[in-house]
Amino acid sequence: MDHDIAWPGSVRPGGRTARVRESVLEVAGDLLADRGFAHLDLAEVASGAGVGKTTVYRRWRTPAGLVADLLVDMAEQSLPRADTGSLLDDLTANARLVAKTLADGRQSNLFRAVIAAATCDDATAAALHTFYDTRLSEWAPCVEAAVVRGEAPVGTDPRAVLSAVSAPLYYRLLASGDPIDDDIADRSARAAAIATAAGTFVVAADNPGD
Amino acid sequence: MDHDIAWPGSVRPGGRTARVRESVLEVAGDLLADRGFAHLDLAEVASGAGVGKTTVYRRWRTPAGLVADLLVDMAEQSLPRADTGSLLDDLTANARLVAKTLADGRQSNLFRAVIAAATCDDATAAALHTFYDTRLSEWAPCVEAAVVRGEAPVGTDPRAVLSAVSAPLYYRLLASGDPIDDDIADRSARAAAIATAAGTFVVAADNPGD
Repeated sequence: MDHDIAWPGSVRPGGRTARVRESVLEVAGDLLADRGFAHLDLAEVASGAGVGKTTVYRRWRTPAGLVADLLVDMAEQSLPRADTGSLLDDLTANARLVAKTLADGRQSNLFRAVIAAATCDDATAAALHTFYDTRLSEWAPCVEAAVVRGEAPVGTDPRAVLSAVSAPLYYRLLASGDPIDDDIADRSARAAAIATAAGTFVVAADNPGD
Repeated sequence: MDHDIAWPGSVRPGGRTARVRESVLEVAGDLLADRGFAHLDLAEVASGAGVGKTTVYRRWRTPAGLVADLLVDMAEQSLPRADTGSLLDDLTANARLVAKTLADGRQSNLFRAVIAAATCDDATAAALHTFYDTRLSEWAPCVEAAVVRGEAPVGTDPRAVLSAVSAPLYYRLLASGDPIDDDIADRSARAAAIATAAGTFVVAADNPGD
């Protein structure tokens, strides 16, 4: 595939670089989803993306470097947070987005491969944690708005609430193997919303006397 | 290590076999925790356990076979369920047990290695699911007793409740990288108990008209 030929009118400063990155990350994602991190080969990615090997080695250096950039791209491409005016509806939207991703064949294999790689590669683990930081920060205003609306107590920790929404879906993907669907997503959101309203995710101030 | 010499009085039918298994699984667990599934080598396990290679290959056949048996052993060795007379206290005991396991250096590496292996090996995935089935079944009576006591609505699904308790701890181990401690365990248990009391984990009967 040569994107310079496919879209001749779109060349702009940085345009080719961005298109090379897009092609490389797509092929890397396909290979990861198909065969896992252990078989991710930079030369094969270059060849699949129609990009010079030197370009790929110079820019991404290692399979872990490639996975780190893929996670940055996945975080950037992810949908913005919901803003429905209701905590339960926002959390349900979040849970359904996670469930849709983890129930999708390619995406679910991709997440499994990256999570597996993170268990034995520190750079990949750091990139994975940054991915979740980015996503949890994107959705945090849903919880902050719920506090303002009085749906959640003051001091509720957005990260804890949003982790509680996603966690049962990841547990199914990685541990129990139980299926993931919209009903399960809705139930996760409901459980998190109820526990939030009850004050379960209020974080004690470190220095309440200050 | 030769357990036949160490405990000469304990020899009984099946005794040596059980001791060989114990040594082999301990060494396999150490190697998995240290270096991950990809480097688990049956010959090295045999040598580390002071057992003949042929014995190990004949009994466990593959690294996946060894991991499967290790998971059976881990499920058998795990503590029995709590029975405190209160759903919240039982769930807290469960959450603390999971948190203690996942916060322990060796155990946490071991779980990460096995979960990573399960993402790319079907036999290991099946063994992992059986491990969680066993643990969830062991603790299910806590939820059943809570229904009898009126702490949880009729129709509450024990597996869903117990998964909700463990899930945030596994999410931290595998996804967000956030730390795991007793406070987090207690919060998971509290969130699950509150959502349970509110009926979140009631499973609709398939044929309510019957």
